Amino acid sequence: MSSSLMSRFLLISSVGIGSYFTGSYIERQKRLCDSDDYVSDGKEYPINRVKPKPALPIFATVSAASPIPVEEKSVVPNNVSRIAQIMRYGFPGLDNVRSYDDFVLSYDRRTRVAHWVFEHLTSERVKHNDAVDRSKCDFAPDESIHPFFRSVNTDYKGSGFDRGHLAAAGNHKADQKHCEQTFFLTNMAPQVGVGFNRDKWNHLERHVRKLTREYPNVYCCTGPLYLPRKEADGKLYVKYQVIGANNVAVPTHFYKVIVMETADKRLEMESYVLPNSKIDNETPLSMFQVPPETVERAAGLLFFDKIARTQLFKINGKKV
Amino acid sequence: MSSSLMSRFLLISSVGIGSYFTGSYIERQKRLCDSDDYVSDGKEYPINRVKPKPALPIFATVSAASPIPVEEKSVVPNNVSRIAQIMRYGFPGLDNVRSYDDFVLSYDRRTRVAHWVFEHLTSERVKHNDAVDRSKCDFAPDESIHPFFRSVNTDYKGSGFDRGHLAAAGNHKADQKHCEQTFFLTNMAPQVGVGFNRDKWNHLERHVRKLTREYPNVYCCTGPLYLPRKEADGKLYVKYQVIGANNVAVPTHFYKVIVMETADKRLEMESYVLPNSKIDNETPLSMFQVPPETVERAAGLLFFDKIARTQLFKINGKKV
Repeated sequence: MSSSLMSRFLLISSVGIGSYFTGSYIERQKRLCDSDDYVSDGKEYPINRVKPKPALPIFATVSAASPIPVEEKSVVPNNVSRIAQIMRYGFPGLDNVRSYDDFVLSYDRRTRVAHWVFEHLTSERVKHNDAVDRSKCDFAPDESIHPFFRSVNTDYKGSGFDRGHLAAAGNHKADQKHCEQTFFLTNMAPQVGVGFNRDKWNHLERHVRKLTREYPNVYCCTGPLYLPRKEADGKLYVKYQVIGANNVAVPTHFYKVIVMETADKRLEMESYVLPNSKIDNETPLSMFQVPPETVERAAGLLFFDKIARTQLFKINGKKV
Repeated sequence: MSSSLMSRFLLISSVGIGSYFTGSYIERQKRLCDSDDYVSDGKEYPINRVKPKPALPIFATVSAASPIPVEEKSVVPNNVSRIAQIMRYGFPGLDNVRSYDDFVLSYDRRTRVAHWVFEHLTSERVKHNDAVDRSKCDFAPDESIHPFFRSVNTDYKGSGFDRGHLAAAGNHKADQKHCEQTFFLTNMAPQVGVGFNRDKWNHLERHVRKLTREYPNVYCCTGPLYLPRKEADGKLYVKYQVIGANNVAVPTHFYKVIVMETADKRLEMESYVLPNSKIDNETPLSMFQVPPETVERAAGLLFFDKIARTQLFKINGKKV
């Protein structure tokens, strides 16, 4: 392909993508305006009745990860530079990216569960602002997702699974809006409650939060896995339950891949895979550490691909 | 979000995406150049030994679908306008799009099987050029896919499954290179051989080809499905085998969604789902017709989304 043709294509491409996302943005704005008939009925599972919230920008782009100078001191930076900050070390994939005020995710329209959710944590950002009230946050479908692929609260009802946060609510308690946005169902996956979401998975979330005490910057990527198992016939099968009218997938496992940046800019990585099942509370988290490549191959994603693995000082506590 | 911020972001976004794909393109060129050590050893399953081929442009973009004026008469149009022609009625999704000379696909890095493959067929294009020799085409891994996610010939070996074409080789016999490109493993899925790939699925492919006799333009989208089934416990499960060292998914079903354009620009649609299993040859193809929405919900894709369904004159032979 000639370079002039390439340039021509890229030009067309840029305009096209621009138009596309402007279109989605406008469409979403419109849908939010149409939802004026919202009534707070106090039910646990309001279906398709979402309190109009400030529109979320919808971007699917690599460029947000380009290092745009950001003012670290600003607690409420403008959204674009915040995305750049969160995605500093690369997007794991580019399928249906949605950016919220304090986290970014890629949505899998087939499983109705995110591919990955990305957060940037600092000790200041994870501090609990007393004005933030988690109990005022409602689980809500994200209306930016086409209704064919959108999970709703009734999908979870009676399933026996928790609506488990991927970006933990506890990481976004500096601002009520940030905390509320973690309750969008795009940020949820069906998780076993007792023994997992409410226990070992929660321990892992607290461990990640604690890392901000030691490291000035912590980048956390969280998502589901659908891992194969060998069956009696000696063959490998991927098998997972789907719940609700929208067939929301119940992942077999969940992963977290974390990068910690020291004050002198040294980088360390931790990588975990936990089964979506009751886990003995006595099992130490280190038992769930796996090489990051294992997660990448299984998830179909590349984590922190702006960092060569040889640039990392430690992986899972061991010197590289 | 203010409109000036929006414009600013879109500008950054455009540049970023441009750079990203230029990057992929260069990386691929490099990799193809590195494979000079290719040796034709005549084996059925050469691993990671691909004859260097002219680099394929790699695009992930909506814009190629914008109607760019194309010269219908030109049998060998430049690649960009050909992509625009193939994708005329919209991209079903935008995950890892790869464009070849005569078809376009979106690759699912998790399953190692495409999400969708798009073709534009005309009677002239599906005509068999006697100079084209299918037996000279080799199944080959697509080295533009990261090795973590790339399927290779040995994944299929001894699995009992055919390397089944998604874009049928028989649709691309006007040009040797077009035919060869359909043999990239990105265009393959594990298919049951006898009773499916070599029988009913082949009938469907021939049916699609025959449509070009009646309709001047035929647009065909093909892909895998992983459908849930109710098990004895009353719950729904998605279950599929994975084969080879790369865990290539064996889809439970395959779909084709086809749009036919009449000489007077009337549009008709046909939509099929076939199980990936031995099918009685007597079963008529019409038995496998399903509403296109069913395929969309299951696949997580939107087909021909530039055409409102109400604009279609017929769906599955019935007037809309």
